[in-house]
This record gives sequence, structure tokens and C-alpha cells, in this order.
Amino acid sequence: MSHAPEDTRVLPGRELAAALRGETADRASELAAAGTPPHLAVVTATADESSAWYVRSIARAAEKAGLRCTVRDLGPDVSPDTVRDTLKEVSGDPAVHGVILQTPLPAGAVAQELASVIDPVKDVDGANPLSLGRLAARLPAFAPATAEAVMALLDHHKVELEGRHAVVVGRSTVVGKPLAHLLLDRNATVTVCHSRTRELAALTSTADVLIAAVGRPGLIRAEHVRPGAVVIDVGTNPTQDGGLTGDVDADSVEGRAGALTPVPGGVGPVTTALLLQHTIRAALTL
Amino acid sequence: MSHAPEDTRVLPGRELAAALRGETADRASELAAAGTPPHLAVVTATADESSAWYVRSIARAAEKAGLRCTVRDLGPDVSPDTVRDTLKEVSGDPAVHGVILQTPLPAGAVAQELASVIDPVKDVDGANPLSLGRLAARLPAFAPATAEAVMALLDHHKVELEGRHAVVVGRSTVVGKPLAHLLLDRNATVTVCHSRTRELAALTSTADVLIAAVGRPGLIRAEHVRPGAVVIDVGTNPTQDGGLTGDVDADSVEGRAGALTPVPGGVGPVTTALLLQHTIRAALTL
Repeated sequence: MSHAPEDTRVLPGRELAAALRGETADRASELAAAGTPPHLAVVTATADESSAWYVRSIARAAEKAGLRCTVRDLGPDVSPDTVRDTLKEVSGDPAVHGVILQTPLPAGAVAQELASVIDPVKDVDGANPLSLGRLAARLPAFAPATAEAVMALLDHHKVELEGRHAVVVGRSTVVGKPLAHLLLDRNATVTVCHSRTRELAALTSTADVLIAAVGRPGLIRAEHVRPGAVVIDVGTNPTQDGGLTGDVDADSVEGRAGALTPVPGGVGPVTTALLLQHTIRAALTL
Repeated sequence: MSHAPEDTRVLPGRELAAALRGETADRASELAAAGTPPHLAVVTATADESSAWYVRSIARAAEKAGLRCTVRDLGPDVSPDTVRDTLKEVSGDPAVHGVILQTPLPAGAVAQELASVIDPVKDVDGANPLSLGRLAARLPAFAPATAEAVMALLDHHKVELEGRHAVVVGRSTVVGKPLAHLLLDRNATVTVCHSRTRELAALTSTADVLIAAVGRPGLIRAEHVRPGAVVIDVGTNPTQDGGLTGDVDADSVEGRAGALTPVPGGVGPVTTALLLQHTIRAALTL
């Protein structure tokens, strides 16, 4: 197939994130005025630096939008039982509307098992397996914010999904798997690839929409991309200079991909904005 | 691609089903001797003839294997609330170890929503969305018996999955979606196609393993099959003469598919055998 190189369209997330945050701030002030200030609780148990950075960015965004945000930092040496007890306590607190369990967790702790104690109504990052099952069964549930952010970005930039072939690289419980269900719901044909996939490039280059969510910097290059395909980069890999880089080698796919989300400034800010929006939704429900 | 026609290998399910039933009968008699006769309850609310046929075949198979089987037939005109209450009652009965909610259901009833009241420990057909979510999150759970039967047949006939491309046609909550998760767990690359998929044949003919689970007689023909591919036919469509026919046109794919499961006598008997096996497992856990 021949292809005349064209500019790859950039699909930024900041504008959409700002719009979502604006709505959230409006609802938050209404809720606060009505005596129910929306309140997000984050439970964390790690010394991981990029996790700490992410938690700080959520707390900052929550504050800016007028939500309360409580971080319960249990430290990296805590037992799974203590994490579970803390989650139960926070989830049972009537003043808390949204609960996030941050990863990574101490050795021996299974995030999905622990997240089972989060009340589904407060499970704003879709971490409870019940939320994932309800999502797959097309029942009301919170989707993991990252997976939903991908869908929100595709919609914001008017990328058609009906009948098209979406290929997701990555099969995690937090992104790849829920994303597959969200894409199926929109009548896309969905392929999930992963580290054991043979001939990755042959498969990914059949995609109309290619989503990289593996956490391997620069894994996706020109040979993985069908000319004109829309590429969504979910990767947020820390760089040595303290920045972030995606799973897509942007220089390599430039002129071949039809469109590409930037890292940073693509899926990331939308994810944070959706976590806050979910917390508002939970506060309105509770 | 040229291809010398060869015989298509038949992958029967009856032998595997008989072996599973044998183990089940042994465990059932041990449990009965210990004072805990394993007990399966089926809740049904339809006048659908093929559903009634299926329920009778489960009851007969249960009896033969030494399990108790109670059928609660609520009739086609019952309210969703009555179905829910009956499921709750049956699931809460300490003498019952396995609970199945039969479909179709009366108008207004959502099977997955109703199945949410089945205790996951007794959810032997994986109908509770929590079971599906736990399956997707790789936590212990009962998979829907039909999806698990496909995996059991592939294993029984030593079909390799690691790194291979499995294409599932059908995205139902009872077969296509759980099957996608089971295949991903075995390191297959997985594509889910459905009624809105464009160029179905182009996609399915990239499959090493092709699984048809849509309920459309003869949908899959030679042009859908890569020469040598393994084809699993989950379809059980009633024929006018009272028989069953699959989603695969067996005559059309003969000599092109490397292997094919028959209908009847393929996935069906293994499904029933696994429902009984799950009930034994539940009885041993409870």
C-alpha cells in the first residue's frame, strides 16, 4: 500500500480535561452549598516516586475543583490486612464519596482482591472486580478512569468506532481489559495483544484505532501503524530527567499515523478529570 | 495461499464429557455418603421449548451422576421481582450448592442484574457479574460453563493457544466475553467480532483458532476459515426437524478447517458435564 506522508494530527487532552474540570467545579460548589462537600479518599501503600507524584496531582486537581481529598498513606511496609481494613473504613465513611486504591502495593497484596471491599457506589476508579463485571455485562458501573479517558478522547476528537477495528496492546485489569469492553459496547471489533503476541506489528497494523497501554517506552513504531490510523498512547513512563514518555515512539509514527495523543497532555489529564467527575456522580447518588 | 485439501479432524466432546461425568459421579457418591448430597437448583421462567429441553437434559444428567436437581419453574408470566426473590431463596438454602438462572427471561428482566443475587460460591454457571469481573481480574471464580467447555475441549484435543491468534465471533456475556478473558489468560491474542464487524471473513481468516458463538446457523463458511485452522462451534440452533445445528457450515469448511467440533456432540455435552462438576466443587467448598 503506498502512502503519501501527511502531518499527523495531534489529539490533545488538556482542553477536554479543562471542560470536564469546569463542570466538576460547578457541581462541587453546588454540593458544598447544599452541605455535602464531595470528598475523594486515596489509600496508598508504596514508596514508589511516580505513584506519589500521581497522588499529589490528583489531590491538587481535587482541591482546585473544590473537592475534599484525603490521602491515607500507609507506607510501603504495611500488611494487606491493614490495607483492606483501611479501605473498608474509608468506604464505610458516609462523608466519603469516592475511594481510590493506589498501586503498586506491598508484596503479597492483590489489588483486585483488596478493592473488592470498596463499595461499588464509591468505586470511582472501577477497581472492584464487581465494577469490571458489571461493565462487561453492560450494567451501570464506574469504569476505570484511564479506560474511560481513552473513550472520552476518541469521542471528543470525533473518531468513529462503529464497525471499525480497534487493537489494544496491553491486557491489564485497569486499562486493556475494561477498554476492550467499552470498545465492544461501541460496536468496534476489538483485538487485545500483549507481551506474548506473535507478529505484533502484523496485527497492530490492521487497526483503524490503535491503543498502546503496556508501559514500555517507544514500543509502538511506524511499522506497527497502518497509514492513517488513530493512535492513542496510554503509556506514562517516567524518564531519567523527571518527565514522562509514552508507549509510542512519536517521531517514528509522525507522518504515518493519522492522529496521535501526546504524552504528557493526552490521556493523563482526562483520566484525572474523570476521577473527579466520578466522585461528583457518586456524591449525587449517595 | 494454495492449500491441498485434507480431511478435517473431528473434535468430539462426548468422550471428555463422559470422563468428567465419571469423576463427578465418584465425588457425588462420596458427598452423599458423608451426608451432603450435592444439589443443583435451576430457576426458569420461560415457555421456550429449547430452553425446556436443555433444562430436562441437565436434570437427567444430574440424576445419572448422583446429584439432586431441583427445577423451580416460575412460568413465562412471572415478574422480575419474583425471579429475584426465588433466586435469593434458593441461593440462601444451605442444602443447595449450585444455582442456575435459565434464559430467556420474561420481558423487563435483565439476567445479569437478577443473577447478582446468586451467592458467587454457588454461581456454577458464572452468571453473577461479580463472577465475570473476578474471572477478568484472574481471581478465583466460576466461569460460565459454555466458555469453560470451549477451553476444556481445546485442552483435551491438545490445541496450542500460547501466542496464537484466537478469534471469537460473538460478544455475549455468557460466552464471547468470558471466553475472551479465558483465552487471554492462556496467552492467546484475542479478537472479538460480532454482528457489526466489517469484513468478517477477512478477520476470521487470520485466526489460528476460530470460535463461533453467535447463534446463526451456518454463518461460518469456508471463506471465513484459514486453511488448517481449528474451529470450535458453540452454536446450538434448533432445526425444524427437532435437531440441533451449529453456527458453522460443516460441509463448507470440510477439507479447509484443520479441525472442527461437531454439533451436536461437541461443546454441548462438555458444558453440561462442567455444570455438574462446578456443583460438586461448590459442595466441597461450602
